[in-house]
Amino acid sequence: MSEKLRRHIEEIIKLTDEEFEYVLSHFVYRKFLKNQYVIQNGDYVKYDYFVLSGLLKSWHINHKGKSHIVLFAAENWWISDPQAYHNQTKAILNVDCLEDSETLYISLENREKLCSEMRKMEYFFRKKTTSGYVAAQKRILSLISDHAKQRYEYLMQQYPDLLQRVPKSLIASYLGITRETLSRLTSQHA
Amino acid sequence: MSEKLRRHIEEIIKLTDEEFEYVLSHFVYRKFLKNQYVIQNGDYVKYDYFVLSGLLKSWHINHKGKSHIVLFAAENWWISDPQAYHNQTKAILNVDCLEDSETLYISLENREKLCSEMRKMEYFFRKKTTSGYVAAQKRILSLISDHAKQRYEYLMQQYPDLLQRVPKSLIASYLGITRETLSRLTSQHA
Repeated sequence: MSEKLRRHIEEIIKLTDEEFEYVLSHFVYRKFLKNQYVIQNGDYVKYDYFVLSGLLKSWHINHKGKSHIVLFAAENWWISDPQAYHNQTKAILNVDCLEDSETLYISLENREKLCSEMRKMEYFFRKKTTSGYVAAQKRILSLISDHAKQRYEYLMQQYPDLLQRVPKSLIASYLGITRETLSRLTSQHA
Repeated sequence: MSEKLRRHIEEIIKLTDEEFEYVLSHFVYRKFLKNQYVIQNGDYVKYDYFVLSGLLKSWHINHKGKSHIVLFAAENWWISDPQAYHNQTKAILNVDCLEDSETLYISLENREKLCSEMRKMEYFFRKKTTSGYVAAQKRILSLISDHAKQRYEYLMQQYPDLLQRVPKSLIASYLGITRETLSRLTSQHA
C-alpha cells in the first residue's frame, strides 16, 4: 500500500529503497470509515493526509449556516485544512469520508524535518506545493470567470468517476449551483 | 531599491551580502509605465515579477468577452500568470500597470538554478509558495462561501490603501459585484 506514496513521490524525484523507508517512517497509516470525521472545525490541525484509497471531502459552513464543499480527495490526492495546517491554527474546515478511506498522514514537524534532512524531499515538497498553487489559481479563475457548465466540465476532467461515487447534491455544492442546474448540465453532458 | 527584495527574502531566511549579490544577479530590473502591458494573453510567459514600487493587476477575459480581475500587486508582491509561468505555456491572463511600476523579474530557469545551487533559496521559494498556496485557498473559500461584504472587507485588510489608488470599477470587477453594490458597501464601511 505504501508503494502508492512511493510512486507519487517518484513522479517528481527518484528515491533509493533506503531513502523511501526513511521517508515512510515519518508518516502514520490510518484507516477511516465512511462518514467519519478526519478534521473538525475548531480543532487544531496537526496533519496533512495522503489518500491511499477511498474518497474524502473538505467543506466549510459559512456564518449563515450554509455549507460549501472545498475539495474532493480520492487516491493520490492530499487533503487537510491547508491554512490551519501550515499556520498551526484551528480548523475553519471540516474533513470527512465519503467512503471507507486509507491514509498516510504527516505532521508539519515531520514534513519540515524531512525537508531539512533530505534535499530530495525539500525539492519534492517545493514542486508539489507549486502544482497545488497553480491548481488553486486555476480554480480561482474558474470561480470568478467561468459559467457553471465550464466549472462542471473541469471537475469531470479532474475526477472522471466522481458522478458514480458522490451524491449529486454534493457535486452541486462544490460547483455552487442548485441540484436542478446540475441535472440540466449532466443531461447535456451524457 | 534592491534592498526591498533582500528584506522580502530575509523575512524567511537570512542571507550574507555575498549570497544576496549572487541571488540578485539572477534578477533583471525593469520599469513599466502606467497602462503598459507586462504580460499579454497568448504570449509565452517567461518571468515572475517582484514589485519594487507601483501597482499592477492581472486579469482575464472570459469566452463571453467579460473581464475579471484576478490579482492586484503592490510593493513586495509577486505577479505573473502562475499557470503559464510554471508550465512554460501561453498566458491566459493579462498583466498591466495601474501606476508607473518598478520590478525585478526572474525566469523560471534562473529560479530553478538558484534553488539547485543554494539550499537557502530552495527553502525560501518552498516557504513562499506555501504562503501563496494558503492565500489562494483562503480566496477560494471566500469566493465559494462569503458574501460580497466579507470579500470587500478581506480585500481592504490585504490592501488598505487600494480604494485611494484604484478606480472603483476595478475593485467591483475583482469582487465580482456591480459598481452599485460596491458603493453601498463602501458607504457602510466609511
